[in-house]
Formats: sequence, structure tokens, C-alpha cells
Amino acid sequence: MNPTLITNVGELTTNVDREGDPTGTLRDAAVLVEGPRIAWVGSAADAPTGIADTVDAGGRAVIPGFVDSHTHLVFGGDRADEFEARMTGTPYAAGGIRRTVAATRAASDEELRARLAGFVHELHAQGTTTFEVKTGYGLSVHDEARLARLAAEVTPEVTFLGAHVVPADHADRRAEYVDLVVGPMLEAVRPHARWIDVFCERGAFTPDESRRILAAGVAHGLLPRVHGNQLGHGEGVRLAVALGAASVDHCTYLDDADVAALAGAHTVATLLPGVEFSTRQPYPDARRLIDAGVTVALASDCNPGSSFTSSMPLMIALAVREMGMTPSEAVWAATAGGARALRRDDVGLIAPGARADLALLDAPTRVHLAYRPGVPLIAGVWKDGGRL
Amino acid sequence: MNPTLITNVGELTTNVDREGDPTGTLRDAAVLVEGPRIAWVGSAADAPTGIADTVDAGGRAVIPGFVDSHTHLVFGGDRADEFEARMTGTPYAAGGIRRTVAATRAASDEELRARLAGFVHELHAQGTTTFEVKTGYGLSVHDEARLARLAAEVTPEVTFLGAHVVPADHADRRAEYVDLVVGPMLEAVRPHARWIDVFCERGAFTPDESRRILAAGVAHGLLPRVHGNQLGHGEGVRLAVALGAASVDHCTYLDDADVAALAGAHTVATLLPGVEFSTRQPYPDARRLIDAGVTVALASDCNPGSSFTSSMPLMIALAVREMGMTPSEAVWAATAGGARALRRDDVGLIAPGARADLALLDAPTRVHLAYRPGVPLIAGVWKDGGRL
Repeated sequence: MNPTLITNVGELTTNVDREGDPTGTLRDAAVLVEGPRIAWVGSAADAPTGIADTVDAGGRAVIPGFVDSHTHLVFGGDRADEFEARMTGTPYAAGGIRRTVAATRAASDEELRARLAGFVHELHAQGTTTFEVKTGYGLSVHDEARLARLAAEVTPEVTFLGAHVVPADHADRRAEYVDLVVGPMLEAVRPHARWIDVFCERGAFTPDESRRILAAGVAHGLLPRVHGNQLGHGEGVRLAVALGAASVDHCTYLDDADVAALAGAHTVATLLPGVEFSTRQPYPDARRLIDAGVTVALASDCNPGSSFTSSMPLMIALAVREMGMTPSEAVWAATAGGARALRRDDVGLIAPGARADLALLDAPTRVHLAYRPGVPLIAGVWKDGGRL
Repeated sequence: MNPTLITNVGELTTNVDREGDPTGTLRDAAVLVEGPRIAWVGSAADAPTGIADTVDAGGRAVIPGFVDSHTHLVFGGDRADEFEARMTGTPYAAGGIRRTVAATRAASDEELRARLAGFVHELHAQGTTTFEVKTGYGLSVHDEARLARLAAEVTPEVTFLGAHVVPADHADRRAEYVDLVVGPMLEAVRPHARWIDVFCERGAFTPDESRRILAAGVAHGLLPRVHGNQLGHGEGVRLAVALGAASVDHCTYLDDADVAALAGAHTVATLLPGVEFSTRQPYPDARRLIDAGVTVALASDCNPGSSFTSSMPLMIALAVREMGMTPSEAVWAATAGGARALRRDDVGLIAPGARADLALLDAPTRVHLAYRPGVPLIAGVWKDGGRL
């Protein structure tokens, strides 16, 4: 690939802190891309000359590609009927996650791969250039390993979530299931995964079970992250902080001690407003977290049960409308915040040496992502230096 | 254009009432398009044979193109800074509509035309095939006529909204302004418009002023519609019903008499949830209206102040999340409901003789428009029989 100069950028969000501005915003800027990396960032007037491939941004805004640090994208079927029943208050024998487990186990590799390819296309079209994918709809040694292997074909950020729920086939044998997760399932998934996660919540896994599962993963070289404090007060956040987890996700029900623990730790609070939108649950209080000094990320939680959206622009709009974030905080959380939640320093920012993952907006400022909710504003996407 | 057969449609929303189902849903269906019209609709198994141009919908859903019966798309500038200040609680000398009036008057025809073309592209890409456009950012004889003329270049549904606000240049002479609206401004706009509208609200125009303005429009052959009951209880709804208006738009603050009046009239209640999303106002209660027998439409109100979104899919998702509508009711309201709000019987439905305005969804059912909020699900759009 020849070097490419993206110039005449009206507003460039670099996320490289400049004099206390964490968005590191430049006006009338340019970015030089060489191979898969960014080579130079600065004022358009100072840009390198003689670059044959030039893209004129026409005064529009450029941001780092979105980093969606929480998705569940390998699954079969959908649950539109369950969603419709929930929204209309109609009684419905839900089946929930277990229903998706059955559909996922029944799907062939080719079916799951085609589905996943469709989601990757969808993510890219909406400006997401880095995304995590969890297992958790296999819940057998064979199927969890299969899902991790398929996920690893599309992203390096694969998370083992055997501890999503206790599957129906182990309903009366939950201790056996936990043994399976920390034993043969972990062994089988390990080669394909970077992360281990657990749904630490009443009705899913207890704090003791969660601690045991995460410790087993860490002992096998996986990095921990936690689903916690989604449906009620619980120990998820404290567990995540104690383990030095990269992120604890959901964080709707927090007491002051949880907030203080997060503020003093390197654990990111990842908020997933697509869930609250799609389930009519209360939104987490992002303002409280940010004001306390907690690092906040936004992610989609894209999954067929509680949040079947992959739209990071919608997460930004919801964070502003419902969670007390400013537009700039929300864009930061959907880019740099996601990168921190994945312990990545090569994405979520626009700086020399970083991956050339960029989104050109059909708008003069990043504020438009919240100001124009629902409108597809992604006019161009570069991933590893290539225009998608 | 050769006839085109769209076949293998997993779910076809016709909006032709079938045995009490207002969505008139067909499974495994096909649609034959000839010229700008629909020629045949039925089961794929019974479809006409020998059609050279065939589109395989792959089992996905097809709906009528969206009918957005309320937009304000001819304007200059934007108000992103005002939006950001409102969302973050920062003091801000707003300027509001008058600020957009100044920017619009300062813009050339070519600038406004290019902007409008961008919005039309945006609407089409999101599945909207019929849309209304209001004047209301000119507020002088010259500029209102100019906006109406430009709007008429892109849609037959042009609305004269000289009575949007009293402009700054008439701040102390509101009676004179009303005289201007019902006199020379109406004369100048009339050749380009089909509708007349008035913002009947405390702070805008009084019921008496509104009545006078609408009556003048009707006397000149325009059809009436009303902005009413957005910010508080008022006379907008009763005025609209009394005049036989096609629609009264906003309808957030209604008493029982208002609901009863709407239920007994042919005036559609057009709900605009983008406004409530973007201003943090309470949402109107669609459930109450539908349960009372009122015809409800959904529209975007796309404008730079209170709802800078053109996304009918987002309106559907918000109607389901926030306003008590079922997904099917919301899709009906965004298609057939909008058509009724514009007194159109050739759009908003899929039936022989109707305009061939269709949207193919990248989803198996229309429920996905609410189930997958923010995700661009429009996989194909036909307008007047041509694929866009």
C-alpha cells in the first residue's frame, strides 16, 4: 500500500491528551497513513508533501475507529419474538440464553461463520474497527472451543465465557459444570482466547464460583474481565478490582464503595446502554463514575437476548441522552475507553505508531454522533491502513 | 423499465387489512413492479412467470417505504453547540429557531439545494421514500417563497410554515407579521405548496392567530395541518380537529377531551419521538391514543434545533421503547400512518396500483427495526419502481 494522506480534516479527535483535553482535538488537520500504521499527525498546513494518494475530508470530522470491547457475536438464531413479547408485556416462555445455546449448538461452523461475517461487515460499516467477541452460547467443551475458534478467525480479542449461565443439561449439577469450565473446557478454549469472563450475578454464578473460574483462567494465561452489578448490587465490581481485571461490565447498581474501588483501580467500568434500551432497565449513572475519576468505556453488548445492536453511534447517543455523559466523553469512551478495557495501546487513538484505524464522519464534528441519533454518519472507514 | 419481480420475501408487510390484521402480512411472498407502480402482490408460489428481472429477497422482510410526514429540511447551518449545551446543562444563549433563520437567509439557493440533496440521499438510504418538507426558516416573503420553491424540487409535499415563530425583525410587531403571513407571504408561497401549518403553542402563535392563518391558507387552496400540544396543554388539537386538518403533530400534552376529539375525527396524531429524545422532554403516550381509536403516525421532525435525525427506524425503536407501541404498530405508523397524515392513498402500502416504493430489510421480520436499534437494516430501496 502506498502512503495515504487524509487531509482537510475539520476536526480531528486524536485522544492524545493535549493540555488537559483528553480528546486531543486538532482543527484543519491531516493524518498520514503508511502501511497498517499512522505515520504522522498534525496541521494540514504542515503535512508532508508529495503524497500521491490523498483523501480530502472536505472539512469533516475524523475520529479513531470505535473499539467495541463487549459483544457476543457467535450464535445461531435470534429472539425477536421474545423481544416483542417483553416490549408489549405479553406473557412468553422465554428460554433466554439457553434458547440461543440450543440454536448455536445446532448451527454448523459454516452457518456461524457466515453469520459472523455479516456482523463484521455491519460493525465496519458503523465505524467499529476493533471488537471483542465472547463465547458463551456453546457451554460444552466441544461447542465453547468451536465458538472460540470461529471468533478467533475475525478478532484477536476473544473471551472465554463458559460461565455465562449453567446450561440446561447441567441444571441440577452446577458444581459439576463449574468443574467442567475450569477443567477441560478451559483447556480446549485456551488456544483461541485472550480473555476469561464470568457472569457474576444472582441467578448466574456466585462470587465464590466466579473467583474460582477467573483464577483458573488467569493460571492458564488468560486475562480476566467480569460481567457484574447489572441486575442488582453484588460483588462483581469488587471481585474485578481485586483481580486487577481490565474491565467490569454493566455497573448499573453500585454503592459508594464500588465507585471508590473503581476510582482507585485500573479496572475500566464498561457501560452497555443498548441493554437498558432493549430491556427497559434503568441506565447506569456514567456521570457519577466519571466525576469520581473512574475510566468509563461504552460498548454494545451485541447479543440476541438483551441488546441486539452493534451500533456504537447509538451507544454514544444513549450515553448523552440517558447517562449524563457529554458528547466528547461519550466518543472518548467508545474509542479510547474501549481500548483501555481491552488493554490495548495501539487502537482508540490517532497518533504516530498507532494502528491506522479511522472513521470519517459525514459531519463537521463528533458531537453530531449524539446530535443526529440513528443517522448513518460513517462516510469512510480505514482499518489497518486499508479503506474498507 | 422492465417489470421486476421481488420474490422469496419471507415477510411482506402490505398494510392492506387482512382479517383484522392492519399490517396485512404475507409470508413467502412476491411483488411485481411495473413502471412506477405495483402490478401484483401475492404468494411467491403463485407469482407471474417469465419475468426477466428478478430480485431474490433471500427470505428477508419487505415493507412499504417509510412516509415521513413532518420534516424541516431546508435550512442553513446547524446548532450542534446548542444541542451540546442543552445535554450538558451548560448555560447557552440559544437563539433557537431565529438563529437558523439567520443562517438560512444568508445561504444561497445552491447551498440550500446541495444541503437538501444530501438529506434526500440520507432519507433514501434509510428507507424513506415519501417525505414532507416545511418552510419556516425564511420568515420573509422572499425567503419563505424561496424555501418552498427549493423544497418543491424534491417533494410534492411542501408545507408553508410562515407561522413557525415571529421573526426577530418583527419582534415588536407581531400583528403586522401575521398580516404578512396571511397576505403577501401566502400569495408568494402558494404556487409551491400543498399544505399550510402553524405552530400553535404558548410562545409561538395563539389559537386565534393560528385559526386566522390556517383559514387564509385554506381559502387559497392549501390543506391544513397543525403543530400542537407539544410543550403544554393548548388548543392545537381541538383547532386541528375543528378544521378537519390531516394531522396534528406532537400531541404530548392531551386531556381526555383532546383524545376523544381525535378518536372521532379523521385527523391523524403524528408523534415525533426524535424531539423528546433530543430535548429530554417527556414522550407522548401513543398507547393511550391507539387504545382510544386514534390513527397514529410517526415522523422524524428532522430539524437542526430539536430533532436533527432523519431516521425512521430510530423513530420506530423509540416508539416501542418509550411510547408503548408494538413493533408492528410502530412500523404501520411510520408507513401507512404517515400516508394518512399526508392524505395519500398511493404510498404507505404494497398493493396493486400503489406506487412501487419499497424497502428490503436485512432482517427476517419488521420487528428487527425495533429489536436492532441504530443498526442500518435497509438493504435495498425502490422508489417509483426504480431501485435507488
